[in-house]
Amino acid sequence: MKLTVYLAGQIHDDWREQLKAKASEKELPLTFVSPQTNHDRSDDIGEAVLGEQPGKIYRDDAASAINNFRTEVLMQKSDVVIALFGEKYKQWNTAMDASAAITMNKPTIIVRPKSLIHPLKELSNKANVTVETIDQALDVLSYIYE
Amino acid sequence: MKLTVYLAGQIHDDWREQLKAKASEKELPLTFVSPQTNHDRSDDIGEAVLGEQPGKIYRDDAASAINNFRTEVLMQKSDVVIALFGEKYKQWNTAMDASAAITMNKPTIIVRPKSLIHPLKELSNKANVTVETIDQALDVLSYIYE
Amino acid sequence: MKLTVYLAGQIHDDWREQLKAKASEKELPLTFVSPQTNHDRSDDIGEAVLGEQPGKIYRDDAASAINNFRTEVLMQKSDVVIALFGEKYKQWNTAMDASAAITMNKPTIIVRPKSLIHPLKELSNKANVTVETIDQALDVLSYIYE
Amino acid sequence: MKLTVYLAGQIHDDWREQLKAKASEKELPLTFVSPQTNHDRSDDIGEAVLGEQPGKIYRDDAASAINNFRTEVLMQKSDVVIALFGEKYKQWNTAMDASAAITMNKPTIIVRPKSLIHPLKELSNKANVTVETIDQALDVLSYIYE
Amino acid sequence: MKLTVYLAGQIHDDWREQLKAKASEKELPLTFVSPQTNHDRSDDIGEAVLGEQPGKIYRDDAASAINNFRTEVLMQKSDVVIALFGEKYKQWNTAMDASAAITMNKPTIIVRPKSLIHPLKELSNKANVTVETIDQALDVLSYIYE
Amino acid sequence: MKLTVYLAGQIHDDWREQLKAKASEKELPLTFVSPQTNHDRSDDIGEAVLGEQPGKIYRDDAASAINNFRTEVLMQKSDVVIALFGEKYKQWNTAMDASAAITMNKPTIIVRPKSLIHPLKELSNKANVTVETIDQALDVLSYIYE
Amino acid sequence: MKLTVYLAGQIHDDWREQLKAKASEKELPLTFVSPQTNHDRSDDIGEAVLGEQPGKIYRDDAASAINNFRTEVLMQKSDVVIALFGEKYKQWNTAMDASAAITMNKPTIIVRPKSLIHPLKELSNKANVTVETIDQALDVLSYIYE
Amino acid sequence: MKLTVYLAGQIHDDWREQLKAKASEKELPLTFVSPQTNHDRSDDIGEAVLGEQPGKIYRDDAASAINNFRTEVLMQKSDVVIALFGEKYKQWNTAMDASAAITMNKPTIIVRPKSLIHPLKELSNKANVTVETIDQALDVLSYIYE
Repeated sequence: MKLTVYLAGQIHDDWREQLKAKASEKELPLTFVSPQTNHDRSDDIGEAVLGEQPGKIYRDDAASAINNFRTEVLMQKSDVVIALFGEKYKQWNTAMDASAAITMNKPTIIVRPKSLIHPLKELSNKANVTVETIDQALDVLSYIYE
Repeated sequence: MKLTVYLAGQIHDDWREQLKAKASEKELPLTFVSPQTNHDRSDDIGEAVLGEQPGKIYRDDAASAINNFRTEVLMQKSDVVIALFGEKYKQWNTAMDASAAITMNKPTIIVRPKSLIHPLKELSNKANVTVETIDQALDVLSYIYE
Repeated sequence: MKLTVYLAGQIHDDWREQLKAKASEKELPLTFVSPQTNHDRSDDIGEAVLGEQPGKIYRDDAASAINNFRTEVLMQKSDVVIALFGEKYKQWNTAMDASAAITMNKPTIIVRPKSLIHPLKELSNKANVTVETIDQALDVLSYIYE
Repeated sequence: MKLTVYLAGQIHDDWREQLKAKASEKELPLTFVSPQTNHDRSDDIGEAVLGEQPGKIYRDDAASAINNFRTEVLMQKSDVVIALFGEKYKQWNTAMDASAAITMNKPTIIVRPKSLIHPLKELSNKANVTVETIDQALDVLSYIYE
Repeated sequence: MKLTVYLAGQIHDDWREQLKAKASEKELPLTFVSPQTNHDRSDDIGEAVLGEQPGKIYRDDAASAINNFRTEVLMQKSDVVIALFGEKYKQWNTAMDASAAITMNKPTIIVRPKSLIHPLKELSNKANVTVETIDQALDVLSYIYE
Repeated sequence: MKLTVYLAGQIHDDWREQLKAKASEKELPLTFVSPQTNHDRSDDIGEAVLGEQPGKIYRDDAASAINNFRTEVLMQKSDVVIALFGEKYKQWNTAMDASAAITMNKPTIIVRPKSLIHPLKELSNKANVTVETIDQALDVLSYIYE
Repeated sequence: MKLTVYLAGQIHDDWREQLKAKASEKELPLTFVSPQTNHDRSDDIGEAVLGEQPGKIYRDDAASAINNFRTEVLMQKSDVVIALFGEKYKQWNTAMDASAAITMNKPTIIVRPKSLIHPLKELSNKANVTVETIDQALDVLSYIYE
Repeated sequence: MKLTVYLAGQIHDDWREQLKAKASEKELPLTFVSPQTNHDRSDDIGEAVLGEQPGKIYRDDAASAINNFRTEVLMQKSDVVIALFGEKYKQWNTAMDASAAITMNKPTIIVRPKSLIHPLKELSNKANVTVETIDQALDVLSYIYE
């Protein structure tokens, strides 16, 4: 059974590539999709499509519309969502995507370090499973195929 | 037409009381509900109901289950959601509640200071309206009754 | 049985007041809600709440967010939608509201003059009932109570 | 990831063919579907199937039933909707399709010239993204695959 | 707990009045709603509202649009549906209403004479409960309040 | 675009085979599914699986459970429903299937002879399209592919 | 804010009366509803309404149809579900009601003794909150009103 | 037409393998999925992924989260659910899965021995079909393809 997995979460390291490589080693029939992971491109996409905007808030709104469009298309096609929180930044997009996924009844795994247990406790409780590492997340995905 | 408004967001000042007082002055037929705003009570509710847990993560999970139960009951009864972000803390519960509300098609207003425009841009774009002050949020609610 | 009726449509004459007066004469237990019918207020509400915007498109977007918020709150509370098209203007909001209502399974009546039969034919076909006058629309509402 | 895109909107020029050609050049894995774009066929389909009707309104109703059937089948199979407004005609079908798509949670792009910003402002605000040209719409679609 | 009960089914005797009288005797807090039970009015309502139509099929379509509008409004407001089949006529409206109610998850009781067991077997199997008399249907309603 | 079409309706002639042959001639990419069309098998399936039942009503209920199971599986997999009414029999299953399909938002075509216009008028009005012959139904299906 | 609470679960002691008394002492604005708690009446309701059936399985099926009808009506009207498991019996109705409630997004509390932790672990994990005593369940309900 | 079948139920004998073998003999185009059928692995999966937990209840909760995740993914991909109850154990997971499936409108077959007729009567009544043996369940599946 093929499954599509949306990888929500921070875009400041290569955790998605690591996860894909490990899934590939295990020969799991998974397709991974994700938000735009090039931060500059993600911030710039609004003006890249629509032209210069009259200030930062309008630039941001133009970019976010296109980023949200992309996320909505890909998340609707996904069977599972993994949302990874790192230790830096606000990561409200990650919380937004995880909460939307849970509300849409997409089975959802949260990955977060021990240091974030307390601020993420309500979101972790709503998710299906919460783990600390991408290896653990992959163990949970593998378990579907046992 | 009576409406019930869920006030998601930070619990570190009295913004809910201010908003209620202003709504009351304007004689708007609104009922306000909200998460537990006593921070210590919110963190402690799990052990208060279920007894001592074997460590912080279990204490947090017990509390979050009951906080999520409360939020789910009250949000399902609400017609409108207002989510306020302040400048401190992660506030992932606020992002979680706003995103759940939007996904459930609850009309949603986000209140956030100018300093948070960039990190909240995708969530703001998904919400119906984003403003900077509770007075503006109340103006939007009042507009329903014009 | 009390019913709430959303009155979508053009805001350039007093058709809503006429309809309410006739419903009142017939003593039908109906509550009517509607979009902002003051055209200038409707166009200005964005800047009235959020302050001056950097150009017409941003002014329009700010206003439309708040108008859409109002419509979404009121339409979700409504049991029936009446959408009236007049002979002037594009009236895309009316088409948008009628189509949204039909898609949400709100029983919907379209009122339009004979001159608009052809351009409105697909929307009329999707609506429950299409009539030409507000008296006919009221006859349909009255029929619920026979 | 293959996606199906419904192209709602005016049928008075070859914008769909242009868009398809450009998507094909970029080798995007997109399948495009659309309403009947032969205007005469679209107006005539009711009588073509059901035989002569007793007047224009009945002819229109017969045609619109079959056009709506077609749209409903194809839109339900689509992952994305693009709705293009031109400067002529009422285009209420375009508004109807865009609003239905948005209400069904289909990610939706509106394409409209600058001259239509004001009359389309509420619909634009509800859509995920609004652009001015089909090249921009294609840029948004391409962004899904970056 | 007050409940609203939609009484679908044949309109050729006074079974609804009998049921209401019995419910009233038992002092059950039930509100009953139903389709138009005046057969002539039901057949004529289209032309009564819209004026003369160019033939029987158009007269029937005009009437059925308004009858369906009424049913949709009232059934959406109902908590329970009772559908009674008699021995005469096609009664496809009754089957249509019962099937729509079941598909909408409205708890549904079918009342039918022994003679109709075989032709109604699939619909009976889909309904929650099937009985033979209105007294039995009322026993089922009363059981909610025990 | 491949579509699956559920053929509800009477099982007393070979209309399904005719329709399939014509669709095949036109090389339309359609897959057809249908209820059990062997009447005796359909009536007997309950006892065939579960063994002899204590009387006709129990025999009918056992059969109808399995027939409904089959219909539910196949209808959920279908993109379009065609429901054909003939001049004989009650055909309440056909009305039940058509109404369930419409309520589930499956685009639905009704085929019925002129003699049934009046008793089917409400169901026809709810369906997307009503025609008189299977050739006309096929014309409507073909129109999707023009 | 008034809430309706469905009390699913075993009917072999007076836990519902205890819970209601305690809620009444605390003056919580709760309305409680429940399945038929008279075991004999619950087993007999099918034959009481429909007359004698041809054996135990048919007697049970007749009763269960009416019990399920009652549960479906009352659970749809409820805002919260409490499901209590005792140490005796299979209690599959309790598991069925709790699982249906959770799938319908009804906020759900499970009450079970320590001895049932292991066999109920998956259901407990799906519920919002799991406690061991009715006092704890009431504490969770009270927390909504703090 | 290929169908995916989720096999809920007890994991203490090889009934799934028997069913698959028989389906394979009949060359039915069915894909079968199921919960983890290795009991020890199912109980241990939480600690296997997350490490040692501070006691049995926490060990159970960790395991059940991952088991529920697996079930949710697979059940959402399934077209049909078969739930088999044996004579031993509580089997609340089986009841939970069957009830969730029915509430999600998945066509559902229950398999249970005669000895369980009474305690399972309400769940049997809600399911589409109830049988006593896996051969009978397979007969019902085969019937889809006749």
